[in-house]
Amino acid sequence: MKLWTKGFETSKEIERFTVGKDREMDLMMAKFDVIGSLAHIKMLQSIDLLTSEEHETLKKELLIILDEIEKDDFQIEDNVEDVHSQVELLLTRRIGDVGKKIHSGRSRNDQVLLDLKLFIRDKITDVVQISKSLFDTLIELSEKYKDVMMPGYTHYQVAMPSSFGLWFACWAESLVDDLTQLEAAYKITNKNPLGSAAGYGSSFPLNRTLTTELLGFDTLNYNVVYAQMGRGKAERIVAQALSSIAQTLAKMSQDICLFTNQNYDFMKLPDELTTGSSIMPHKKNPDVFELVRAKSNKLSSLSNEIMLITTNLSSGYHRDLQIIKESFMPAFDELIDCLQISNYALKQISVNKEILNDDRYKYLFSVEEVNNLVLEGKSFRDAYREVGEKIESNNYDFSNKSVNHTHEGSIGNLCNDEIMHQMKLVIEKFNFDKVETAIRNLKNPL
Amino acid sequence: MKLWTKGFETSKEIERFTVGKDREMDLMMAKFDVIGSLAHIKMLQSIDLLTSEEHETLKKELLIILDEIEKDDFQIEDNVEDVHSQVELLLTRRIGDVGKKIHSGRSRNDQVLLDLKLFIRDKITDVVQISKSLFDTLIELSEKYKDVMMPGYTHYQVAMPSSFGLWFACWAESLVDDLTQLEAAYKITNKNPLGSAAGYGSSFPLNRTLTTELLGFDTLNYNVVYAQMGRGKAERIVAQALSSIAQTLAKMSQDICLFTNQNYDFMKLPDELTTGSSIMPHKKNPDVFELVRAKSNKLSSLSNEIMLITTNLSSGYHRDLQIIKESFMPAFDELIDCLQISNYALKQISVNKEILNDDRYKYLFSVEEVNNLVLEGKSFRDAYREVGEKIESNNYDFSNKSVNHTHEGSIGNLCNDEIMHQMKLVIEKFNFDKVETAIRNLKNPL
Amino acid sequence: MKLWTKGFETSKEIERFTVGKDREMDLMMAKFDVIGSLAHIKMLQSIDLLTSEEHETLKKELLIILDEIEKDDFQIEDNVEDVHSQVELLLTRRIGDVGKKIHSGRSRNDQVLLDLKLFIRDKITDVVQISKSLFDTLIELSEKYKDVMMPGYTHYQVAMPSSFGLWFACWAESLVDDLTQLEAAYKITNKNPLGSAAGYGSSFPLNRTLTTELLGFDTLNYNVVYAQMGRGKAERIVAQALSSIAQTLAKMSQDICLFTNQNYDFMKLPDELTTGSSIMPHKKNPDVFELVRAKSNKLSSLSNEIMLITTNLSSGYHRDLQIIKESFMPAFDELIDCLQISNYALKQISVNKEILNDDRYKYLFSVEEVNNLVLEGKSFRDAYREVGEKIESNNYDFSNKSVNHTHEGSIGNLCNDEIMHQMKLVIEKFNFDKVETAIRNLKNPL
Amino acid sequence: MKLWTKGFETSKEIERFTVGKDREMDLMMAKFDVIGSLAHIKMLQSIDLLTSEEHETLKKELLIILDEIEKDDFQIEDNVEDVHSQVELLLTRRIGDVGKKIHSGRSRNDQVLLDLKLFIRDKITDVVQISKSLFDTLIELSEKYKDVMMPGYTHYQVAMPSSFGLWFACWAESLVDDLTQLEAAYKITNKNPLGSAAGYGSSFPLNRTLTTELLGFDTLNYNVVYAQMGRGKAERIVAQALSSIAQTLAKMSQDICLFTNQNYDFMKLPDELTTGSSIMPHKKNPDVFELVRAKSNKLSSLSNEIMLITTNLSSGYHRDLQIIKESFMPAFDELIDCLQISNYALKQISVNKEILNDDRYKYLFSVEEVNNLVLEGKSFRDAYREVGEKIESNNYDFSNKSVNHTHEGSIGNLCNDEIMHQMKLVIEKFNFDKVETAIRNLKNPL
Repeated sequence: MKLWTKGFETSKEIERFTVGKDREMDLMMAKFDVIGSLAHIKMLQSIDLLTSEEHETLKKELLIILDEIEKDDFQIEDNVEDVHSQVELLLTRRIGDVGKKIHSGRSRNDQVLLDLKLFIRDKITDVVQISKSLFDTLIELSEKYKDVMMPGYTHYQVAMPSSFGLWFACWAESLVDDLTQLEAAYKITNKNPLGSAAGYGSSFPLNRTLTTELLGFDTLNYNVVYAQMGRGKAERIVAQALSSIAQTLAKMSQDICLFTNQNYDFMKLPDELTTGSSIMPHKKNPDVFELVRAKSNKLSSLSNEIMLITTNLSSGYHRDLQIIKESFMPAFDELIDCLQISNYALKQISVNKEILNDDRYKYLFSVEEVNNLVLEGKSFRDAYREVGEKIESNNYDFSNKSVNHTHEGSIGNLCNDEIMHQMKLVIEKFNFDKVETAIRNLKNPL
Repeated sequence: MKLWTKGFETSKEIERFTVGKDREMDLMMAKFDVIGSLAHIKMLQSIDLLTSEEHETLKKELLIILDEIEKDDFQIEDNVEDVHSQVELLLTRRIGDVGKKIHSGRSRNDQVLLDLKLFIRDKITDVVQISKSLFDTLIELSEKYKDVMMPGYTHYQVAMPSSFGLWFACWAESLVDDLTQLEAAYKITNKNPLGSAAGYGSSFPLNRTLTTELLGFDTLNYNVVYAQMGRGKAERIVAQALSSIAQTLAKMSQDICLFTNQNYDFMKLPDELTTGSSIMPHKKNPDVFELVRAKSNKLSSLSNEIMLITTNLSSGYHRDLQIIKESFMPAFDELIDCLQISNYALKQISVNKEILNDDRYKYLFSVEEVNNLVLEGKSFRDAYREVGEKIESNNYDFSNKSVNHTHEGSIGNLCNDEIMHQMKLVIEKFNFDKVETAIRNLKNPL
Repeated sequence: MKLWTKGFETSKEIERFTVGKDREMDLMMAKFDVIGSLAHIKMLQSIDLLTSEEHETLKKELLIILDEIEKDDFQIEDNVEDVHSQVELLLTRRIGDVGKKIHSGRSRNDQVLLDLKLFIRDKITDVVQISKSLFDTLIELSEKYKDVMMPGYTHYQVAMPSSFGLWFACWAESLVDDLTQLEAAYKITNKNPLGSAAGYGSSFPLNRTLTTELLGFDTLNYNVVYAQMGRGKAERIVAQALSSIAQTLAKMSQDICLFTNQNYDFMKLPDELTTGSSIMPHKKNPDVFELVRAKSNKLSSLSNEIMLITTNLSSGYHRDLQIIKESFMPAFDELIDCLQISNYALKQISVNKEILNDDRYKYLFSVEEVNNLVLEGKSFRDAYREVGEKIESNNYDFSNKSVNHTHEGSIGNLCNDEIMHQMKLVIEKFNFDKVETAIRNLKNPL
Repeated sequence: MKLWTKGFETSKEIERFTVGKDREMDLMMAKFDVIGSLAHIKMLQSIDLLTSEEHETLKKELLIILDEIEKDDFQIEDNVEDVHSQVELLLTRRIGDVGKKIHSGRSRNDQVLLDLKLFIRDKITDVVQISKSLFDTLIELSEKYKDVMMPGYTHYQVAMPSSFGLWFACWAESLVDDLTQLEAAYKITNKNPLGSAAGYGSSFPLNRTLTTELLGFDTLNYNVVYAQMGRGKAERIVAQALSSIAQTLAKMSQDICLFTNQNYDFMKLPDELTTGSSIMPHKKNPDVFELVRAKSNKLSSLSNEIMLITTNLSSGYHRDLQIIKESFMPAFDELIDCLQISNYALKQISVNKEILNDDRYKYLFSVEEVNNLVLEGKSFRDAYREVGEKIESNNYDFSNKSVNHTHEGSIGNLCNDEIMHQMKLVIEKFNFDKVETAIRNLKNPL
């Protein structure tokens, strides 16, 4: 079934090629398609394009379909083009001609855009929640190990004293900034495109402000041409924001892969979290973090993929936009999986408490020595030269390994409370409650 | 002069290679390096690492150097490694040993990070201001041409009626979302890294909260390991945000290049804004918008470049980060140039007021016809089929070209006021005044 | 079943995460895994690590498994980690302990690398063949329409006379260069990694030259560390080569989408190859070429994705490499699909033979006019100015629309024969016969 | 001076914006512009568009200009648009009206394309030569250190015995494949575009085969539309090939940065090749290889940048292509610099000959143990289990550290001769002599 049949048959080959993986992708949007329709029909009634009875009939049946979708009892039939057509088909089959009325005042262009935005909102809610769990674990580990020292590196060279307290919390603070970027992406997404139709609006007296409220959007994408342009753009901006979380995970995983190797030996995964080699009987590999790293890097390439698909296309819908869904929609669950497995594995990591006893780290404290001289009144440059000369002439005394860092964010003063406070503020700004309430109201039976 | 000389000479060849374009890049940061030092010495005094007299002497001389920089009377000497060393050298030359004290409690790592963040803040301020000028022009043109109709396209195919009112304003609304993303990038950047030293803090009792206030930052990058990790990350997130503005420009330019060609003929650039061909005497090419498109696309590849440089590097500083500056720092002025020239050229564009008279656009109004049937009581699907059959059998009447779109954001109800209001809100959130006031205070003579 | 079980159980959660889509990907390599094993056991026998009887038993069973794979009667069981383990398991189940011997002298690292290279070789063979079919169609259409004129554009502006003869053949010649790049990628891939084991070789006296010959490779990846480094690198280089074909398709599709729109109207797809709109009854969209464009652009982002995953990783295997398979392996069939559907659709395209009659193209011939003046003895610059002034003052005579281009590769002298000859030479260089013969021999029953 | 002045002035602002960095880029092509003109005028004479005297006058003056360029005594004047105009201007100034005749039969489109291709050929010649020097150094170091053992890693975990012989040579063999890809890029570039004019050919009876021979091209880009399409495409394919060399350098640098850190301590750079820290007096950082890594990764992003600029543009010249030059043209020298500095630094690296004595590498030889059991008759799987159990129960005997690898490409049989032979074959295929001879002949005074 096609919504646009007009007396000739599309070639089977073309149909296969153009539908592609779309049925599969559309299933992920089914729930949101129905929710969008619930708002749309309520608005249609408000402008008298549906009677109260028609609205009631449609709403009742849509709620049944929604229930079927949530129970996984819904599919897009073989000869049906997409989820929008499938829902319209089910309605018409079950309640007759009134089903044909739900497409008034919209096009599949704004409908899929709406579905996509509702899908993104929903997935971002999950991403934020799981990121918060990981954040909590990181802060917890930072506090637990705040007194365990480790070497800090610059240029991959032993540099200055650091601590596991700093190391675990740094990823937590990183997530604060990542969610700040994601919150902007959420805000940009959370604007109502419905009513833009094919990107040029409609001659029906639609009430777009009403659907905006019903669906819990912050505001509208006003200009209908711009609303359509949001397709591809929203995905790109969201993908960019997801790449920040992904890069936090990737860099943390890179550290863990190094720190668990025999040359560093800073951390250890329990055997149950490692995998082996088919030929080397001694191997216990940290595959889990290698894969978190790789999947995160893959995800980080997504915004570039979207850009390559969309750039230099003129304004107005192009079918190209469909292809973005194939990589974009599964990306959320892939990221969530990486966040969850990282959280799961981090909780089981053990740290080496005796690292700094090794002689290879003996120069770590040379800056402390310089600073002591400065505190005694030397200028920084002169103190630096003095210690440097001692090191070059092998007259440096390594015995003093005490570290006394007191300023904000240092080994002795992690400021994890301040970081937790920042995270709280960022998450509040998403204001997920508003959306949740709106959707709950929309699903309420009459 | 190197801050780290220690008794052996670095190979000339290595020095040339490692310094690279850094002196050139550093010049762009000179002003911010001095501003950062002004805040740093005030803090050093507050913790008694400088006496009041030392602070006064240093401040006076730093203000002189700042003045020289602003008058373009400053250079990084040939044998000096970077801007930080140059400033320290000038101080020591002019006021003696006290100059050597300004490096206490910081490393070049947090110093350059600070400079970079101050540079970014400054450039973002410019980007926002120029974007707002372009926005104003677009809204103005939208209002001016709100009654001039043009065809709307989907799939590059004639679709539905549109208008220049819609077309000009869609780019304006696009800029609202672009600046929303940029505001998040600004917020992420606008956190104080000073005091993180080489990424592992310092044994001096630094007061990082004080420098945060002095420099007008929103807050600190608390965790010192994370503060260092901001290098590369801030650039990536800012580059991603700039790419959104760039993609708005690129897509608009693509439209203009199409719309000024002989097949569309929707718009015209005055001759003075076109360029010619070396062999075709009739050519008047819209090179300006081709170059805006290309430069914008180039800029859109920047975040991927940064990602390729930084990904899979462990935490802690790596010299790789230096290379990011070469593409990142000039990107702002390139974008600003594109914004300005677009603004300049758009103001001189003339639009064709008689487009729809051409027969090729006759099907534009078929949806209006469907909708009319719906308003008369038909279901949407049945109305669609009826009109479709008329078209296929050549019985469709094209004479009715009236368009009556009234909903929010449509041809007849552009909602430009609402879009302007959104823009106002976004710009307010940057809160540029706070930074400006802080910097002004910092520059005040004692 | 895991090849590396060692007394503790891997967490289920870790197992699910680390296996990921690997079973699915591995199925595509099953055939090649068995072929690789056929060569490996023959070599093992030659160095007396297998007796003749053991070799015979193993070969017989491997051929049976190969047959099952080709009949789609093969699967990777739920608790089996990968295709290598599955084949080893089947052998052991069916022929007992001798099955356990096939892993001597190799690791899964070189085994999967081998499988991947055999897979790539096979898929490239297909890509070349389908590209050649498209090439033939393009040359055919070029000859068929060689006298139909069309405007040539520069800067999207009407420039000079062109022809469909030129337009169709340009994509054909483009494919010649694309296959030249692909041939280099093929050559780089077509080197034997077997025997590199985990990337550091083996203490068995392997005969790598023998497996090189048996599998039809051009030569070996000699250095075992480099052989392992080929993973990720081969995929990147192949992906880069595929992107060239993809970009040829994308650009051609972009032209077709423009040329079939109402403003150009140079070409027409039959109705059966178009798709419709859910609200505009008149729409007949060229979705097929929009999707070829988008899929080609997506594929063009693949090498960057691979780069982001692999860059800054040290030498030696990392599990990250597994993730490359997920995008890389399906890319071939996606490209092949685009090539085939383009070929299918191009054959049905009709071209407009009366384009140049339209007044909008009247300046097309201005260069001809300049050239005529040059042939009469004027200097080029003076002739250019003369014609330019006539155009500016509206004194230019448009009536002469004759074109007489005779040089190589011009409208009047397409040189399609030369282009066909170049294509023939490129394809011969792949030397597919050699591989085919080797594989056929290897499959021969004893 | 503009070649296309037609009675109105281009806005100064537009001129500044559109010229951009083009004068700077064009200087790099000046030499090749003159060489191209030498071939072009000889061809013009052959078809009687120039007399012998005119040809002689022009040739003599072009050779003088060429000489000036090579002596750095050439500049593009402020009001001159590009190098082509500058050369034409000089000619006209010095030898009068005959100078105006050199533009007959070409456009700046094919002229710049030709210049770019000659530039690419020239730079590739350099890249190959410097790559060969690095290759020689690597082979030399491999032979020198072939008996020094080091651990081999997989998953960043200690895996199996490796050697510096393997490690140095692996990068050499990598360069063989890199140059194979570069040779394809060279071949694709090395086709003559001259005569395609603005991409649609010319009405002059040009002899393109003659210029092909004069300039030493392998063949022509026949189809003139395709010839123009080579712009952007050649750059992309060359950039992809350069990225392979770059990735070899980046990965090698990553290894060196790890191997010179205190946790690995496999290698050491002399102090003169390291740089220091502004606060840590003990630091000796391997900045040179960090910068090689970063610059190589930056270069690896270039093909994606080119793709973003060019994708979805229709066939025919667009001004966008100009922007590619800004990143593309300097990329060669940046890569060459990285190759040279790597070569310079590698020669001075010293290796640690006692690595394996450290206890952390004790499991390295477990596979040898398994293989020994296999050679005694056990199946591989059973032997693997036996050794694995010994390790888990701490009963494994580590004392045997002998390694006896004999197969092709292994520790004991590096096959560096075969790798050198492969390199020789690849370089021969470039056939640089042919081009060199042609250019020399072209420059010969009459």
